[in-house]
Amino acid sequence: MGLCTVIRSLRRTMLATAWLVAGARAAAAQGTLVLQSDFGTRDGAVASMKGVAVGVDAALRIHDLTHEVAPFDVWEAAYRLRQVTPFWPSGTVFVSIVDPGVGTERLGVVARTRRGHLIVTPDNGTLTLIGDDVVEVREIDLARQRLAGSERSHTFHGRDVFAYLGARLAAGRTQFEEVGPSRGTQLVRLNVPTASIDLPVTPRAGQATRGEATVRGMVAMIDRPYGNLWTNIPAAMVDAAGWSRGDTLRVSIAHDSRPVVTVVTPFVESFGHVPEGAALAYLNSLLELAVARNQGSFAERHGVGAGPGWTVTVTRVGRAARP
Amino acid sequence: MGLCTVIRSLRRTMLATAWLVAGARAAAAQGTLVLQSDFGTRDGAVASMKGVAVGVDAALRIHDLTHEVAPFDVWEAAYRLRQVTPFWPSGTVFVSIVDPGVGTERLGVVARTRRGHLIVTPDNGTLTLIGDDVVEVREIDLARQRLAGSERSHTFHGRDVFAYLGARLAAGRTQFEEVGPSRGTQLVRLNVPTASIDLPVTPRAGQATRGEATVRGMVAMIDRPYGNLWTNIPAAMVDAAGWSRGDTLRVSIAHDSRPVVTVVTPFVESFGHVPEGAALAYLNSLLELAVARNQGSFAERHGVGAGPGWTVTVTRVGRAARP
Amino acid sequence: MGLCTVIRSLRRTMLATAWLVAGARAAAAQGTLVLQSDFGTRDGAVASMKGVAVGVDAALRIHDLTHEVAPFDVWEAAYRLRQVTPFWPSGTVFVSIVDPGVGTERLGVVARTRRGHLIVTPDNGTLTLIGDDVVEVREIDLARQRLAGSERSHTFHGRDVFAYLGARLAAGRTQFEEVGPSRGTQLVRLNVPTASIDLPVTPRAGQATRGEATVRGMVAMIDRPYGNLWTNIPAAMVDAAGWSRGDTLRVSIAHDSRPVVTVVTPFVESFGHVPEGAALAYLNSLLELAVARNQGSFAERHGVGAGPGWTVTVTRVGRAARP
Repeated sequence: MGLCTVIRSLRRTMLATAWLVAGARAAAAQGTLVLQSDFGTRDGAVASMKGVAVGVDAALRIHDLTHEVAPFDVWEAAYRLRQVTPFWPSGTVFVSIVDPGVGTERLGVVARTRRGHLIVTPDNGTLTLIGDDVVEVREIDLARQRLAGSERSHTFHGRDVFAYLGARLAAGRTQFEEVGPSRGTQLVRLNVPTASIDLPVTPRAGQATRGEATVRGMVAMIDRPYGNLWTNIPAAMVDAAGWSRGDTLRVSIAHDSRPVVTVVTPFVESFGHVPEGAALAYLNSLLELAVARNQGSFAERHGVGAGPGWTVTVTRVGRAARP
Repeated sequence: MGLCTVIRSLRRTMLATAWLVAGARAAAAQGTLVLQSDFGTRDGAVASMKGVAVGVDAALRIHDLTHEVAPFDVWEAAYRLRQVTPFWPSGTVFVSIVDPGVGTERLGVVARTRRGHLIVTPDNGTLTLIGDDVVEVREIDLARQRLAGSERSHTFHGRDVFAYLGARLAAGRTQFEEVGPSRGTQLVRLNVPTASIDLPVTPRAGQATRGEATVRGMVAMIDRPYGNLWTNIPAAMVDAAGWSRGDTLRVSIAHDSRPVVTVVTPFVESFGHVPEGAALAYLNSLLELAVARNQGSFAERHGVGAGPGWTVTVTRVGRAARP
Repeated sequence: MGLCTVIRSLRRTMLATAWLVAGARAAAAQGTLVLQSDFGTRDGAVASMKGVAVGVDAALRIHDLTHEVAPFDVWEAAYRLRQVTPFWPSGTVFVSIVDPGVGTERLGVVARTRRGHLIVTPDNGTLTLIGDDVVEVREIDLARQRLAGSERSHTFHGRDVFAYLGARLAAGRTQFEEVGPSRGTQLVRLNVPTASIDLPVTPRAGQATRGEATVRGMVAMIDRPYGNLWTNIPAAMVDAAGWSRGDTLRVSIAHDSRPVVTVVTPFVESFGHVPEGAALAYLNSLLELAVARNQGSFAERHGVGAGPGWTVTVTRVGRAARP
């Protein structure tokens, strides 16, 4: 497999995550509304949004993605959409409100995806990780797509605009085409590093050893509440590196180029394949490389966080015995 | 506008919050049940209530207001009801269980509001902030309105009485009139300070300066998770004081008469109109005056809490340039 | 009542909790799915499971038991199922995912109970406390009962297997009998101590005083967020000891045989029957003996936890005046 093929393959995997698409059922989800925010559930904000939605159509099926995105953390909101949307059927309407710019000039948009989802959100980077799936974006016409009587309220577009519009879309009371002017596929995107692979030099005649691939990525998310590290290194890159079950990997984590921790760990299928407390590398439920400690918190024990500054470098240091 | 008119206008605004009523849709919400409690969601209490409700009618649409009211905090329960109920359609049945007096002589009641809501709750002050909207209260007849077989359980009326009755009301299995004897509009009410305004003296001929209004209120709630301060000063009082967008306000907060913090801050529409970290005053999503720091926690930074002991005094110290 | 009768009665009460059964309504709950996990609600795991379920049938009514079981705490998962399932109608399908052994050889099972519930779970002890209610267990045939395309995902059976199968069962797309081979009633069970009673010696002629019963049990759970202690001592054992309302009990709590705290406390119906802050003993909402402080946290104040190592010994030290 040539390098170009590898890269094309990686790109395809990262964008389409084809098996996830395969997993999404064909059942129509007309009438299904899924809400995400950084509001928490301690106060009445989420319930106000749901009230507005029930007021549009009491028969709507309203679900929560999460409301515990860290306040103002657009990256986390983007990650959650990308983690969850592939498992919802076509027709589902998502409303995502992590909106530090509420009441300013940032746009509100509805994005339609290849999978037949609609996502209603401020256009602030929330759609970064599913952007390549977006087939059309429409700008919300605030004059028309807004709860009647809410004109003086400028700090809760989640309730007054986005939940209201999301409910109307989910209920079939308005159509995507009526939301407002099309923006093609133009979206605000966060600057996110992608994973990369250095493939080993092809050994020349006479050389005894073959080199190992080195894969570099970021710690994309801490898998709470467990404290596992989820990287942005896709399974296809793991495959390209030639690593397989039972191999031993060396995983080095750094923060802003300063080394934080290095572990040498087996690459296994799941937690229970190593002793309690031991480190492991595995493919997580999004089929990306992850590092954890069985029934322990890797993040807390080693003081590791997530985000662009947190880099991970992985190479193989031992091979499983092959039958 | 005379003072009397102002006061009448304020009162109207505070009680009816007319635009919110306008916002609530007319869709029938028969079969909609909304639950609030201080149970948290860590244990099985909420799920037991929902099981009882599903047992009454599996087709009920059951939503959560919040279950994270601070334990025993009737004030917070009252505030949440007032924050959220205006956005739910007529016919919605609410069950609110913050019940430090469970198993004692406190009454259980169902209140019917002008908006067509039913609220099932222990009568312990939870209805304080929507009390003026209540058109009739009925006392729950415990002998008849109780889950069969629960007679020996005295500490979970939320499950055995309130959720069960709320579900039966929402499902149309029983009617408001059958709940028990009417109490008119008699309710237990918490002693809550109201906001007040000192209007400036009308300037006499020859006086160069016109005074400024001073508005006094309380910090009614901390807007979690952000840490913004929500006061009980309504928009109509802000209007009566003559403050408008771009003016500069001085906001002084005290606890039990001891000064805690004073900020001089622009009065703007929303967070993004000031730099990150800067203070702002704005009308919140309930159209009441609020104070915050853009993307920071005002409450944590300045050590401010909420409740009757936390007072706020606001006056204008600078005017926007008017076109 | 002879000792044998008492013990038989206790056993019956503990297993069947007959009044709870009486409380569960007869309404069909076809289409009702209830989810429990230790995933928390901060990330996308729960929402992914729900998406899979909605993909099976968008009309399913999906509820949460809780997702805040302490990570890997199978005992807590077992306790929650036992606390909550009696209040859900026949036909409800529960999915419980506290699964430290995910991806290893532990079985996935579906248990059918006498009450007509189905419970889909890894077979790791989660069914311990309702095991005597189970009438048949079937082993999940992973080859057939799995989300298409999920073959390479080994760490999220909650989504790929259990939620998917639970949804198919709730929606009537597959039948219990089709899940996989029957295992009779064979289940992994945690080793849980049961409560015991030492009845007093029958007084002989001429003896002035009659002895008191001593009851021993465990602190089974801390009732969060309040901090009350819930024991595993059933009402029938309290009855057998002859204790009734107004009596005074001495409650001693130990951890691994080391005394932690002893309180002398009235046995009352509910919290409000003692002053704020005072200790009380009462029958909790599962009709088991509990110890609390009115509007205070007994667990925090006295440093008490829950689980097999936390034992409680109770005897009566004073009798109420009887009319």
